[in-house]
Amino acid sequence: MDQNIFIPVEQMKSEFTRILKKTGFSDSKAEKCAEIFTLNSLEGVYSHGVNRFPRFVMNTRDGFIVPDAEPILVNGIGSMEQWNGNLGPGPLNASFATGRATDLAEKHGIGLVALANTNHWIRGGTYGWQAARKGYIFTGWTNTEANMPAWGAVDVRLGNNPFVVAVPFEREAIVLDFAMTQFSYGKMENYKREGRKLPFPGGFNAEGELTEDPGEILNTRRTLPIGNWKGSGFSLLLDILATVISGGLSTHEITRRKVEYSVSQIFIAICLKRLHNYSSIEDSVHQIINDLKSSIPENKNTAIRYPGENVVKIRNQNLASGIPVNRGLWKEIEGL
Amino acid sequence: MDQNIFIPVEQMKSEFTRILKKTGFSDSKAEKCAEIFTLNSLEGVYSHGVNRFPRFVMNTRDGFIVPDAEPILVNGIGSMEQWNGNLGPGPLNASFATGRATDLAEKHGIGLVALANTNHWIRGGTYGWQAARKGYIFTGWTNTEANMPAWGAVDVRLGNNPFVVAVPFEREAIVLDFAMTQFSYGKMENYKREGRKLPFPGGFNAEGELTEDPGEILNTRRTLPIGNWKGSGFSLLLDILATVISGGLSTHEITRRKVEYSVSQIFIAICLKRLHNYSSIEDSVHQIINDLKSSIPENKNTAIRYPGENVVKIRNQNLASGIPVNRGLWKEIEGL
Repeated sequence: MDQNIFIPVEQMKSEFTRILKKTGFSDSKAEKCAEIFTLNSLEGVYSHGVNRFPRFVMNTRDGFIVPDAEPILVNGIGSMEQWNGNLGPGPLNASFATGRATDLAEKHGIGLVALANTNHWIRGGTYGWQAARKGYIFTGWTNTEANMPAWGAVDVRLGNNPFVVAVPFEREAIVLDFAMTQFSYGKMENYKREGRKLPFPGGFNAEGELTEDPGEILNTRRTLPIGNWKGSGFSLLLDILATVISGGLSTHEITRRKVEYSVSQIFIAICLKRLHNYSSIEDSVHQIINDLKSSIPENKNTAIRYPGENVVKIRNQNLASGIPVNRGLWKEIEGL
Repeated sequence: MDQNIFIPVEQMKSEFTRILKKTGFSDSKAEKCAEIFTLNSLEGVYSHGVNRFPRFVMNTRDGFIVPDAEPILVNGIGSMEQWNGNLGPGPLNASFATGRATDLAEKHGIGLVALANTNHWIRGGTYGWQAARKGYIFTGWTNTEANMPAWGAVDVRLGNNPFVVAVPFEREAIVLDFAMTQFSYGKMENYKREGRKLPFPGGFNAEGELTEDPGEILNTRRTLPIGNWKGSGFSLLLDILATVISGGLSTHEITRRKVEYSVSQIFIAICLKRLHNYSSIEDSVHQIINDLKSSIPENKNTAIRYPGENVVKIRNQNLASGIPVNRGLWKEIEGL
């Protein structure tokens, strides 16, 4: 494996901005999009940051992402709105929809924005952090191309449909961002490359048995839904909801294309400061987290963490030392 | 094991009504509550219907459920409302909150009702069916007492926090109703009584290994969260959201009491007929379900089903032949 190099935040952002401008993005859109890819990397989600950037550029150059497209309002119904993403850049559309959902929540208590015909939002947690750091509860999800069989089936028909829930906490946030498969393809490929078994069963082998062997699962494509039949059902319902509420494409329609584009997404925000118990919320969440952290860990040296807890630590570390990037990958990016 | 007897719907409902009236319920509340317990049984969810009825009566007689309490509005914020359930009967409060959420959705597109200080809603799916059969998408959840360890911990600190998602379909509904543990305590007790292994790992044994032995899990109480760390995180966030949005008690506060009462619940409805794509929704959901059902099943004789698909069949069967009830249990109920 190549050694990592450490890229300062500003350098990464200006490099991404340069490339995006060259790829048809306006100055402000290039900067905003570069900012999101840099932030995802800064916060340690490299798979959905710097590592994904070349593919994002390629998809744009191939015409699946329209760099200057803007979402347009199709239907407004009080606290719920339906928008057409016009195949614009996924992170820009998603960030816009999140802001729109928090605006609606400010006015009505809760706000929902449904986005049809948009693109991969890259890292769902981005929008959870965005809303939660402004004082809103957030939940949102996206559908995807098919990459998981329904429970009891052998062929992939369901998406892994990442789902995000976020809550403000200590000027930062608790952010849960999870897909419906136990392990992503990317993670299984990493384990396979390193010759390691998965820590828990992640799918089925050719004999239909649960296995921890990433290579066998990559062959069968029988990835394991979280909670078996439960995650299979949840994936199905998330796709139905995203499709129906946005009026966009569903997983089976997206899958018919060769490249994943024109997906459907949902963004829901809830305004905390309008709740009658607003003044006691911080204390209430603290108590829940304190109780969680008073758990007896199985391994004495492993503290029990809440979702997103490590992000702040990694962010500060990468701010100080630069963002670790594979040397070869950075060279590739510099050549874009 | 006792043989089952088959009780006609009307007989079950009138028996439940008789007992509830004797237990302090007004005529109309007794009838409505009896109707929900009967419906849950009719639809095959016996564990959250007739089998649970004696415990519900006992909890009421012990004063944890206040039969004549009504929920009161604490705070209304446009499309979101916070209510105090006043420790009223869980199914009545939940059914009311669902109706209120659909009313708000009718007006604003989306509606959210948060219910603090309420009681066990018995079967979450009830409210999914209620909203979906009236043309609304529904999602809702409840917190519970602690019954699951956080991922990496050995002591129970999290609830299994059942979560419901429902969508109208063919004048019926697709209803997903799942808890955050892979198997409920009731299910594991059944397997143990019958001397059977669980079909999949359901928790950890005393050595900290995943096991399919229900007895070992009942001993350690280390139930398995769905998707391991993912279900653990989802349970935590569902508790935080229910607590914060309702202003009610959280799992750790509920757990300090000897009996599970005064829980927190969320009810969200979305009005389909106000969507711009309303006329194509039925077709769109049909296509998704058709695609699911065209999956290649692992076992040729096992069709791939959507969540709630069996309910209509069981309902019709039980309508025709009566609701199966353990003979001893029915005798016990007649004696209440």
